[in-house]
Amino acid sequence: MMQPPPAQPGMPEDEVDTPALLIDLDAFEANLDAMATRLEGTGVKLRAHAKTHKSPVIARLQMARGAVGQCVQKVGEAEVLAWGGIPDILVSNEVVGRTKLARLAALQRISRVAVCVDDAAQVSALEAAAEAVGARITVLVELDCGASRCGVEPGPPVVALARQIAASPHLIFGGLQSYHGSAQHRRRPEERAAAIAHAVEVTRRSVEQLTQQGLPCAIVGGGGTGTFEHELASGVYNEIQAGSYAFMDADYARNEVPPPFRQSLFVLSTVMSRAIPGVAVLDAGLKALAVDSGLPLVHGRPGLRYAGASDEHGKLLVEDGTAPALGEKLRLVPGHCDPTIDRYDWYVGVRRGRVECLWPVAARGMMQ
Amino acid sequence: MMQPPPAQPGMPEDEVDTPALLIDLDAFEANLDAMATRLEGTGVKLRAHAKTHKSPVIARLQMARGAVGQCVQKVGEAEVLAWGGIPDILVSNEVVGRTKLARLAALQRISRVAVCVDDAAQVSALEAAAEAVGARITVLVELDCGASRCGVEPGPPVVALARQIAASPHLIFGGLQSYHGSAQHRRRPEERAAAIAHAVEVTRRSVEQLTQQGLPCAIVGGGGTGTFEHELASGVYNEIQAGSYAFMDADYARNEVPPPFRQSLFVLSTVMSRAIPGVAVLDAGLKALAVDSGLPLVHGRPGLRYAGASDEHGKLLVEDGTAPALGEKLRLVPGHCDPTIDRYDWYVGVRRGRVECLWPVAARGMMQ
Repeated sequence: MMQPPPAQPGMPEDEVDTPALLIDLDAFEANLDAMATRLEGTGVKLRAHAKTHKSPVIARLQMARGAVGQCVQKVGEAEVLAWGGIPDILVSNEVVGRTKLARLAALQRISRVAVCVDDAAQVSALEAAAEAVGARITVLVELDCGASRCGVEPGPPVVALARQIAASPHLIFGGLQSYHGSAQHRRRPEERAAAIAHAVEVTRRSVEQLTQQGLPCAIVGGGGTGTFEHELASGVYNEIQAGSYAFMDADYARNEVPPPFRQSLFVLSTVMSRAIPGVAVLDAGLKALAVDSGLPLVHGRPGLRYAGASDEHGKLLVEDGTAPALGEKLRLVPGHCDPTIDRYDWYVGVRRGRVECLWPVAARGMMQ
Repeated sequence: MMQPPPAQPGMPEDEVDTPALLIDLDAFEANLDAMATRLEGTGVKLRAHAKTHKSPVIARLQMARGAVGQCVQKVGEAEVLAWGGIPDILVSNEVVGRTKLARLAALQRISRVAVCVDDAAQVSALEAAAEAVGARITVLVELDCGASRCGVEPGPPVVALARQIAASPHLIFGGLQSYHGSAQHRRRPEERAAAIAHAVEVTRRSVEQLTQQGLPCAIVGGGGTGTFEHELASGVYNEIQAGSYAFMDADYARNEVPPPFRQSLFVLSTVMSRAIPGVAVLDAGLKALAVDSGLPLVHGRPGLRYAGASDEHGKLLVEDGTAPALGEKLRLVPGHCDPTIDRYDWYVGVRRGRVECLWPVAARGMMQ
C-alpha cells in the first residue's frame, strides 16, 4: 500500500501530518538554478542522479534547466523514469541477472537507457538480452577511479571491455563511467581535490587509449555534489552526475567548505511526548530518517539536539531551556538525503508557509 | 508505486530477484510455536508487536497460536491491521494531532484499537475525538519504567491520568503500558535482569496504587524479545509485546545468552561486481538494509565479511580466499529486523529451497 498523502495543496505547513518529507521550494529551485548557471557555457552537461530524488517530476525540472538526462542505480528506477517520460537515462551501475536484463532491454522501446559494465560476462549477457528483443543498448565501461568498489582498472582492462562492447552487434560503446563516491564526503577540500586529481588522471589516460584504438567516448561521466567543481575543471569529464545538490543534508554540510547549495529538504515531525523533564520526543525515528551518516539536526532551533533515534521515536534534549510544546511541529535536516527520501511516498512542496504541491516519490523502494 | 513481486510461488529460491526479503518458513513457524509453547498455561498472553512484521497475515498466524491481539506504534499501522481483520489492537504509543485522532476514533467501528497517553492534554484530545463520532476508546497510561523516553513517573502522575481517563465519558481506562525498550539489547543478561527488575518494581507499585483507587488494570503490557522471560516471571505483567522473536536479527544475536529463537529473516542479494581483487560487491546497500544496529552478516559464509554499505552497494571482503561468483546469490542477516522489513513491499516465504508464498508488508511505511 502507498502512504496516504500527508497534506493538501493550499494547507498551511503547520497542518501537514507528520512525519512528512518537505521540500522548501524556494531553496530547491535556487539549487537547480545555481547548478544550471554554473554549467552554462562550460560544455559540460548535468546528468542529474535520480537515485536521490526518485521522481520524474523533479527530473523534468532539471532537464528544463539544461540537464541532458538522468542517472539511476537500478533498473526499477529507470523504469519509473522512462514511464514518466524521461528520454535519456544512464544506469550508472552494473546490472546482473536475467530478469533485470530483460527489463532493461524491453525499456529501450520507450527511452534510451544506457548501462555500465565491469566484467566480460556482463557484456555477453547484455548482448544476449538485447538480441532477444531486437534492441540496441548503449553500454559504458565503469572505471575504478579510486573508490575500489565497482569498475575495472585503467589501461588494458578498459580497452578490452570497450572492444568487446563495440564488437557486439546489439550493443553500442557509449563511453566511461568514472565516479568517485567516497570522495564526495571527505571533510577537507584538499582531500577531495587529491582524490579527484587521481580520478581525472586515470580517466584522461583511459579516454586517450580508447580514442587511439578508434573507440571514442561519447560520455565521460562522474562527479557528485561534493566534488563536481574538480571534474568540471578537468577538461576530461563531459557529464556531471550530482544528485544531492537539489536538497543537501547534514552530512554534506559538515564538509569543510560545503557545496554551494541551500538546505531544501526537511522531515517535518511532531512533539508527541513531553513527560520527561529536559526531553521532548518526536514522532520521527529510524523508520522516518536515515541515520547512517549521523543523526538529523533540528532546523532553526539550536537549543534542541536530536540525541537518539529508535524505530518510531526521536529523542530531543532541550539544551537551552526553551522546550517545544506538545504537538509542536519541527523541521529536521536529515543526516543523509538519498535513503531518507526513500522512506516516503510523497514530497510536500512548501513555499512561504503554505503547501504548494504534492509530488510522488515514484521510484521509492525500486531496489531491483 | 509498489515494488513488483520479486518471485512467484513454486520458483527455486535461486531465481528470486534481488534484493528481496526472505522468510525461512520452517524457522519462522518454529519461532511462533516456541513463543506460544512458552506462554501456554502461564496466564500471560502474547500481544505481538506488529511494528516488526507490519502484516495482517503474520498477525493472524500469531493469533491462531494464542496471541490476544497486536501492538502497533502508529495509527497507520493500526488501520492496515484493522482493515486486514485484526479485532484487538493496541497503539503502544502516544498519538498527537487532530487528523490522527480522528482516524483512530473512526477505526473503533471495525476493531478495538486502544492507545496510550502520558499527558493530560492527550486525554482531553482523545475524549473530544471519541465524542465527535460517538465512539468509546480504551486508553492505557504509559509508565516510564526506565527508558526515559515516553511515559509518566510511577505514583501520583499515573493515578491522576488514569482518573482523568476513567472520568471521560467516551474513554475506558485500560491499564498500563510499561515497556523498557533499551533494555532489550543490553548485552549482559545481568544488565537486562536489573533493568527489568526495576521496571517490574515500579509497575507493581503503580498497579497496586491504581487498584486501591478503584482503577484496576485490565492490561499490564510490556516486555520484548530480549527480556520477556523477566516480565513473564514477574507476576505483574499480563501481556508480552515481543515482535522480533518471529524473525531475529544480527543485533539480538550479539546479546550474551541470545533469545531462544532462530534466524528466519534474510535479505537475498546478488553479487553484481567482482572487478576488484578480494572484493565482491552486492546489490544490497543502505536502501535495502537498516544499518543503525550494525552491518549485516553473510549467512553460512564465514569467510565473507560485509564491510561497508553505500546507498545501493554492499562491499564484501573475501577473507578466506573463496570468493563468490558474479551473479551468485547470498543470504544476508540484517543488523536490525524492524527497519529492514520496512524497506520492502513483499515477504518471500521459502521452504526447502522453493518459494512457497508471497505476503505483502502491508503496513510498510505507515509512519503516521
